[in-house]
Amino acid sequence: MDKVNLVNAFSRFTEQWTPKVVGALNGQHVKLAKVQGEFLWHRHADEDELFLVIKGTLTIHLRDRAVTLHEGEFFIVPKGVEHKPVAEAEAHVLLFEPASTAHTGTVVSERTVTDQTWL
Amino acid sequence: MDKVNLVNAFSRFTEQWTPKVVGALNGQHVKLAKVQGEFLWHRHADEDELFLVIKGTLTIHLRDRAVTLHEGEFFIVPKGVEHKPVAEAEAHVLLFEPASTAHTGTVVSERTVTDQTWL
Repeated sequence: MDKVNLVNAFSRFTEQWTPKVVGALNGQHVKLAKVQGEFLWHRHADEDELFLVIKGTLTIHLRDRAVTLHEGEFFIVPKGVEHKPVAEAEAHVLLFEPASTAHTGTVVSERTVTDQTWL
Repeated sequence: MDKVNLVNAFSRFTEQWTPKVVGALNGQHVKLAKVQGEFLWHRHADEDELFLVIKGTLTIHLRDRAVTLHEGEFFIVPKGVEHKPVAEAEAHVLLFEPASTAHTGTVVSERTVTDQTWL
């Protein structure tokens, strides 16, 4: 593979809430997502999920608290923990999670993306 | 766990070539390293390794080419591939790799760090 430039990669898509795979290693995927507004509550039964904010601000709501991430901050949502990402303005987020991770975890909605799209 | 602020985390250590663990998920570690100068040629027999440059410039030498990473760029060195990281000025690098990854892979030298130190 070649190197990935994050700014360039984010410039290559506009859809929100549809993570694009930009790297694979050790059974894990590196994904990029543009997010804005409120996502749905969901959890991943078997996968921990890392959110690293590359641009903007993302708040990850948990049932007992909320974690607000600014540029250059990351948080790991442990497997089984319900979470709801929210971004007032568009945020650019890097995700690191197992390749097996389902978009909306154990929940299926009209917002669920089922394919793993490479950028 | 709490969120991790990368700038703050990098400010908490000065040693070079001694990655600090700042997150664990799905059997993988997120590590931060300050690097400057030339490291040694090594390979990881079973682990792919991701290098994301947070600050500065890092060149990853491979036997057949070199990949230069600037801030906001990442590269994945596949398992088994010999590599030698080099940074003229100090660079700050985020690593994603299996928790099992040995510092200098199949090579052991006086520069090898054997413990997995959490920041």
